[in-house]
Amino acid sequence: MFSSPTDAAQSKSDRTRAALREIALTSFRERGYDATTMRLIAQEAGVSVGNAYYHFATKNDLVQELYLDVQERHRAAAAPALAGETDLIERIAIVYRTGLDRLTPYHPHAAEFLSAAMSPRSEINPLSPASTASRDITEGLFRDAVSGARRSGLPSDLARALPAALFLSHLLLALFWVYDRSPGQERTRRLLDRGLRLLRAALPLVRLPIARGLVREVLELVAEVGR
Amino acid sequence: MFSSPTDAAQSKSDRTRAALREIALTSFRERGYDATTMRLIAQEAGVSVGNAYYHFATKNDLVQELYLDVQERHRAAAAPALAGETDLIERIAIVYRTGLDRLTPYHPHAAEFLSAAMSPRSEINPLSPASTASRDITEGLFRDAVSGARRSGLPSDLARALPAALFLSHLLLALFWVYDRSPGQERTRRLLDRGLRLLRAALPLVRLPIARGLVREVLELVAEVGR
Repeated sequence: MFSSPTDAAQSKSDRTRAALREIALTSFRERGYDATTMRLIAQEAGVSVGNAYYHFATKNDLVQELYLDVQERHRAAAAPALAGETDLIERIAIVYRTGLDRLTPYHPHAAEFLSAAMSPRSEINPLSPASTASRDITEGLFRDAVSGARRSGLPSDLARALPAALFLSHLLLALFWVYDRSPGQERTRRLLDRGLRLLRAALPLVRLPIARGLVREVLELVAEVGR
Repeated sequence: MFSSPTDAAQSKSDRTRAALREIALTSFRERGYDATTMRLIAQEAGVSVGNAYYHFATKNDLVQELYLDVQERHRAAAAPALAGETDLIERIAIVYRTGLDRLTPYHPHAAEFLSAAMSPRSEINPLSPASTASRDITEGLFRDAVSGARRSGLPSDLARALPAALFLSHLLLALFWVYDRSPGQERTRRLLDRGLRLLRAALPLVRLPIARGLVREVLELVAEVGR
């Protein structure tokens, strides 16, 4: 009926970990990447720096928690909207738009995160092995968007390759968003709308015999990038 | 007949500047961005650190010299090859390939340069005002590649928009190249070859009435990114 002493210790440790995580997520959003330090997080959580390092070996582990938090919220926002939509392009639009919505609070400090994450060797590069869990969520959303569409008329080879192309485009859109200084990043939204219109205009063409060679080239290009 | 003392001083100052520049270019290639410091460059040139700063206010000014040097060599390699080629796709291929050739010696340290240059606020971002001179060379090469082609059959609106799209693709290809760990960056070359084949396959289609809406969407998308 009652927790054993070990459970209580476990639970206190869990609470400390959760507190450090919450404080870090808030700090990344409000102070940015550079100004968020393990020392500051420990101080605000009321624990020693050594204790903070026991829970999270580096600041970058906390950035991975941030990525996971953002993508879990992304999935939570996209899933109910996807459940009520069958049109392929609209479903894809939902995944992109709810993704940008979740990123928005981080825009003031996005350049810092980009600098820290952009090197191929960076532990917080979105393509790094350490970022697999959050990347899996986003890739899964694009796969769901495509597989759950009705009457899309997509040839099956294209349907298989499309989610990877959409995820790649998502990374490029996020890159554009970091550079976007327009109010509310409206240029990024406009770019997305144009991309979606392009996709809608291209869909009826992909089944024409004359366009098959072109489609095959696009697929091979995307496969090359994602390899 | 003889130089005045002022000329001699001018000439000595020019020689110091040229020496600092050469040493910096070599150091960026051999040691990379992070390990190249003004102190080290001054030391190797046999001048005081203060004198080095008189010629180049920051290390980033020397990176701009590097960009300019690489792009001048790019132009010098592309120009004679372009003079002997009239096919649009082959001309575009020349500009991309000679560009990658010039980048190749910098690949071992490319990740460092990317980290330093990627922030929208970075003084050595290739899109920054400080990088205008080297960017102008590259953009000019893509304009020449398109305008000097014979019988390309490109609709005029597409011919006007194409150089900006090619330059944007060049930046994305360079980004891919930084991440490319294959021997001799052969994956980047293969990606380029596929992109060129895609362009060649798309060319006959762009004049079909059925594809006009699609082409217009592509043009507006590119214009949005480049705005």
